[in-house]
Amino acid sequence: MIYFDNSASTLIKPKQVQKAMLDALEFYSSNPGRSGHREAIKTALEVEKVREKLAKYLGADNIIFTGGCTHALNLAILGTAYDGEVVCTESEHNSVLRPLQHLADEKNVRFKIATQAQKGRLTFLDLESHLTKDTKLVIINHISNVNGDVADIEEIGEKLKELNIPLLVDGAQSGGHFRYDMKKMGISMLALAPHKGFYSPQGVGCLAICGDIKLSPILFGGTGTNSLELHQPDSLPERLESGTICTPNILAFGAGVSFVEENFYAIKEKLDDLTTFLHYELSKLPVKIYTSTENTNGVLAFNIDGIHSADLANILSEKYGICVRGGYHCAPKKHEALGTIDTGLVRVSFSLFNTLQEVEKLIFAIKQILKTKPLANC
Amino acid sequence: MIYFDNSASTLIKPKQVQKAMLDALEFYSSNPGRSGHREAIKTALEVEKVREKLAKYLGADNIIFTGGCTHALNLAILGTAYDGEVVCTESEHNSVLRPLQHLADEKNVRFKIATQAQKGRLTFLDLESHLTKDTKLVIINHISNVNGDVADIEEIGEKLKELNIPLLVDGAQSGGHFRYDMKKMGISMLALAPHKGFYSPQGVGCLAICGDIKLSPILFGGTGTNSLELHQPDSLPERLESGTICTPNILAFGAGVSFVEENFYAIKEKLDDLTTFLHYELSKLPVKIYTSTENTNGVLAFNIDGIHSADLANILSEKYGICVRGGYHCAPKKHEALGTIDTGLVRVSFSLFNTLQEVEKLIFAIKQILKTKPLANC
Repeated sequence: MIYFDNSASTLIKPKQVQKAMLDALEFYSSNPGRSGHREAIKTALEVEKVREKLAKYLGADNIIFTGGCTHALNLAILGTAYDGEVVCTESEHNSVLRPLQHLADEKNVRFKIATQAQKGRLTFLDLESHLTKDTKLVIINHISNVNGDVADIEEIGEKLKELNIPLLVDGAQSGGHFRYDMKKMGISMLALAPHKGFYSPQGVGCLAICGDIKLSPILFGGTGTNSLELHQPDSLPERLESGTICTPNILAFGAGVSFVEENFYAIKEKLDDLTTFLHYELSKLPVKIYTSTENTNGVLAFNIDGIHSADLANILSEKYGICVRGGYHCAPKKHEALGTIDTGLVRVSFSLFNTLQEVEKLIFAIKQILKTKPLANC
Repeated sequence: MIYFDNSASTLIKPKQVQKAMLDALEFYSSNPGRSGHREAIKTALEVEKVREKLAKYLGADNIIFTGGCTHALNLAILGTAYDGEVVCTESEHNSVLRPLQHLADEKNVRFKIATQAQKGRLTFLDLESHLTKDTKLVIINHISNVNGDVADIEEIGEKLKELNIPLLVDGAQSGGHFRYDMKKMGISMLALAPHKGFYSPQGVGCLAICGDIKLSPILFGGTGTNSLELHQPDSLPERLESGTICTPNILAFGAGVSFVEENFYAIKEKLDDLTTFLHYELSKLPVKIYTSTENTNGVLAFNIDGIHSADLANILSEKYGICVRGGYHCAPKKHEALGTIDTGLVRVSFSLFNTLQEVEKLIFAIKQILKTKPLANC
């Protein structure tokens, strides 16, 4: 079996990530932040180590642990955008578009979707005409989960900082492949999906905050502080972390961050090599590619004319044992922009643990499918 | 070290729970419900097995996996109570009171808090006078996390069913110690905390639903279905499970449910024995006990006159290596009812893995502290 669906979740979790999770169940199963005894404090200290590591790694002032990246994006969007305008991009995932639609339905919020003028890259120019005095928040999908398009996050951050408009970055696909310095880059909030580029378990996310963003909670409950009050406390992270946090996942995420830091250049090189090789080989075939040659961050999208992407993914899985994702990718505006609203597209997404030989097998399979296309296209 | 804080989180996770979590990282790290390839389907099938097992175990129609019990309670409360009245009890945790307070602040919702006439037990009579034609939801804390008080859930469920008022049960402390049959018992929604009585990892919760309760989502995002729509789909569980779910925690929870089912009577007997023994021994000492003798479900609350509960817990931890929880327990109305709003209280909470010898050591420590009380009371 060959697994090329790492943008949905990296399949192989490194040994140190597995060990951290198992250690959590063995040694850190007390509830952090709920009692004052030794076991609770021992566990809380481990969680705080990860929090500090992340804050330093991202250049953030505060780290809020959540159940996942979607939860983190909901917190950032529902927690800040009460009224006024929000500007986002055509690359946004439903984890951004659906909370915005909810706000548009229920509150005095309007959202505008910036389109990309340039192939493969979103620049500040694409946003500029949408910004008004009512713009309360800009949301940028840093690397598209659909086709690997990249936003020029440093330029955008710099300009928005000058304009004093908060910037929320959806780093679901970029986290682990890009080194953030939120303070320097003018990023107010950054949402991460550890189970993707950080090779960590599903069941944890984080919202990193920089500067004086004041967020309203979206979940309410016990915080281990101000226990007699019926309102959430003001202090962070408690205000935004109601209920018992996901300790084993957080500790494993900490190990995942270390793994990515230790292997940063190896990961970058591997993704670059595999994406470039696949792009080069596919470009020789009658295949429509939706990923720009310069975007070599491990995601490549394509279609074969006459075969629905879901069918193609199915053939690759069933006949060749190759796992890719077909159909739609939870980013409807991106499909509109790419002209794939009827067909969806096939996405290949790599991790450090993939090999050139595996890509060769994919190329071989695609060649075979192209040869037998009249049969495949049923 | 002796650990008596199992109501915050059970410390020892059985081997099969640990194995299930590790297996998830080894074999089920694909994203369930996001792609159609073999790996995704293999993982999704494992998750669905747990969902089905839970539905059967609880007599529920639908199981929604969440990040924790607080998330489940928020979903149940914020997702149903738009307007009108909610009736809850003095035993409620902040995971119920704070979402209600938020609704009272932001929406047209009023909530009333029923007090217990009888020591140790909440009955339907305590609720009856609060119910009106505007009552949209009744929320019952089944077993109090503060002192082990029990609600007469079967009688309450039956009566509310006759009145056609939906019942939400907070089963954070009762889950694993009590066998639910939601349909039979007239329970519309049940929130569980797997990391407590199910000996499962932190980072997962569930809301079980029975009957035609229509819940609004509180988190919005990718659901793997209706991907081109900007609104959440109607189908369950997708509508209420936005974003990648916590697969390793869910699979470990599945193993936890099996563990509890296999050891149900042994757990019940152990908790009963230890609580009864501790109660009997403490009743011979000058100690104020807040738990009724008949409530032998593993939670016992007490105070020593002249020593603040947080100080007492601290002495037990630092001097005797015994972990109990002192101070407040995120249930302010219960502390008011028990008259411990100034002092908090010390809570001892057991698991299957505790022993009589450990309880003897606690009794010894308390006797020692009582002897040296003038010194301890600084």
